[in-house]
Amino acid sequence: MNEFELIAALSTTLATNAKVIAGAGDDCAVLDSGRPGRALLFKADAVVEGIHFLPSAPPESIGHKALARALSDIAAMAGRPVAALVTLALPRNFDPAQIQKIYNGMNVLAVRHGVAIVGGETTSNPERLLLSVALLGDVATAKCVYRSGSKAGDAIFVTGELGGSLAGKHLDFEPRLTEARWLAEHFSIHSMIDLSDGLAGDLRHLMQSSSLGAELLTRSIPISRAAKLRARTESPAKPPLVAALTDGEDYELLFTVAPSDAVALADGWRQEFPKLKLSCIGRMTPASGLKLRDENGVRSLEAHGYVHFA
Amino acid sequence: MNEFELIAALSTTLATNAKVIAGAGDDCAVLDSGRPGRALLFKADAVVEGIHFLPSAPPESIGHKALARALSDIAAMAGRPVAALVTLALPRNFDPAQIQKIYNGMNVLAVRHGVAIVGGETTSNPERLLLSVALLGDVATAKCVYRSGSKAGDAIFVTGELGGSLAGKHLDFEPRLTEARWLAEHFSIHSMIDLSDGLAGDLRHLMQSSSLGAELLTRSIPISRAAKLRARTESPAKPPLVAALTDGEDYELLFTVAPSDAVALADGWRQEFPKLKLSCIGRMTPASGLKLRDENGVRSLEAHGYVHFA
Repeated sequence: MNEFELIAALSTTLATNAKVIAGAGDDCAVLDSGRPGRALLFKADAVVEGIHFLPSAPPESIGHKALARALSDIAAMAGRPVAALVTLALPRNFDPAQIQKIYNGMNVLAVRHGVAIVGGETTSNPERLLLSVALLGDVATAKCVYRSGSKAGDAIFVTGELGGSLAGKHLDFEPRLTEARWLAEHFSIHSMIDLSDGLAGDLRHLMQSSSLGAELLTRSIPISRAAKLRARTESPAKPPLVAALTDGEDYELLFTVAPSDAVALADGWRQEFPKLKLSCIGRMTPASGLKLRDENGVRSLEAHGYVHFA
Repeated sequence: MNEFELIAALSTTLATNAKVIAGAGDDCAVLDSGRPGRALLFKADAVVEGIHFLPSAPPESIGHKALARALSDIAAMAGRPVAALVTLALPRNFDPAQIQKIYNGMNVLAVRHGVAIVGGETTSNPERLLLSVALLGDVATAKCVYRSGSKAGDAIFVTGELGGSLAGKHLDFEPRLTEARWLAEHFSIHSMIDLSDGLAGDLRHLMQSSSLGAELLTRSIPISRAAKLRARTESPAKPPLVAALTDGEDYELLFTVAPSDAVALADGWRQEFPKLKLSCIGRMTPASGLKLRDENGVRSLEAHGYVHFA
């Protein structure tokens, strides 16, 4: 049983109440705020030493990553983060100076995005450091973007460049909060997700949420320099396209819009965010399955991204 | 550096914003909800195998405890819990059936208190199971009770019976949510905390928050059967009074009210909650320090409760 299967099994019988607009299964839970037109976003996420970062990682980067991952999920709903709680599970003989630097890394990112850190529980986890971050966010109910909502024919967009995140980006990426709110403010974004499990895996979440398939144009997929470099220097080499499709931890935005909005969106983006690449990489299809189209034709993609406990 | 010292060091420089009514340092953070007269409560807490429960603990009890601890912090502010997020950090070779039972334990408690479980992230923590629970709650701003607010002369009350929780209560206690809301609804509760570190340690939090001292009447401190039993059967024996003062994980409510309210409160409580003991155990004093009064006079109490990393 892998992570996704376990979550699916556990999620079938969860307690619920009238405040829940969307429970488990999207990037954040969405809750009735009691204020007309506004909803609450609620998300928790953890990073674990040896799994999400190495003991040798700069402590500021560990703190940055712990908070940035949860912020990226708020971005995926086009929300604004409000407050964070941090649970630190400390190994034996932890170094207080390292913990302070971890907090410094979180604080710098929190200040940049206007998030308050409103609590810092600590506990013990003898063998390794673990940080769990809970985030509360705010969103206009009408502008909240879910994983579901794609329509057949929708254009598929992705921000940034993909693959090779483990070379460094996974520790210092910037969550796409401003960009996501701009998108939702100016266009009807049909569905959105942040890339944590790899393009192919996360696109499948969008597909399944709307019972659709997708066709990607191979040459339009933005491949990172890191993925290209690793393909030349690592053995066995992973082709850069495979890295862009299946490497985890890109933390970019993947979203769909009506094809009639695609050109205006791409033009507006270039004006607003000239330094951040935006690529139209394909379209949602009525036929199920994930297809890749290149100069040789169309083929099915079987690889399905990073599965944590595969 | 112990847990309290580390938290104190980390808490001095946390990022904040205009939504924060109370940040780190109370049982929950309190946030502006944007709704007149209502505030949000926000809390995260974790339980770790070998620290907060033994591997042999019934899995339903592990789930119960993980959620109940966070609920107890919502109770300490007189709030109502709304939604919970669960982060499961799973050891190698975890048993999916055990995880399902842990969730069952959480679900039963969640349903009883009207809490929705709106997400279930999983990650890996190879050596031991860890559950982190984030809770969102709601409270009438005017009825929210903080650790601070005690006045000299206030009567000190505690619910239930204290000490010996490790004999079993720490796994199956019921968070005092209904009781706390009733208290705040009917009386002016000056300060409140839930007992997690032991009566002496947690009373010191109330004292320090209001720059006061306290004097306890030894014979009024309610001592649990478990604490008395352990004093007879364990070696070295811990006197039951010491257990009641210093054992952790009672998860009862400790609160203060004006002395003029004390009798009416005790009478009302007996009507409303005839099965749950309520004890007036002493008073807040202008002089600092924690004193114990018995038939032999007054002495200072140096023991200061359970310190996680002492």
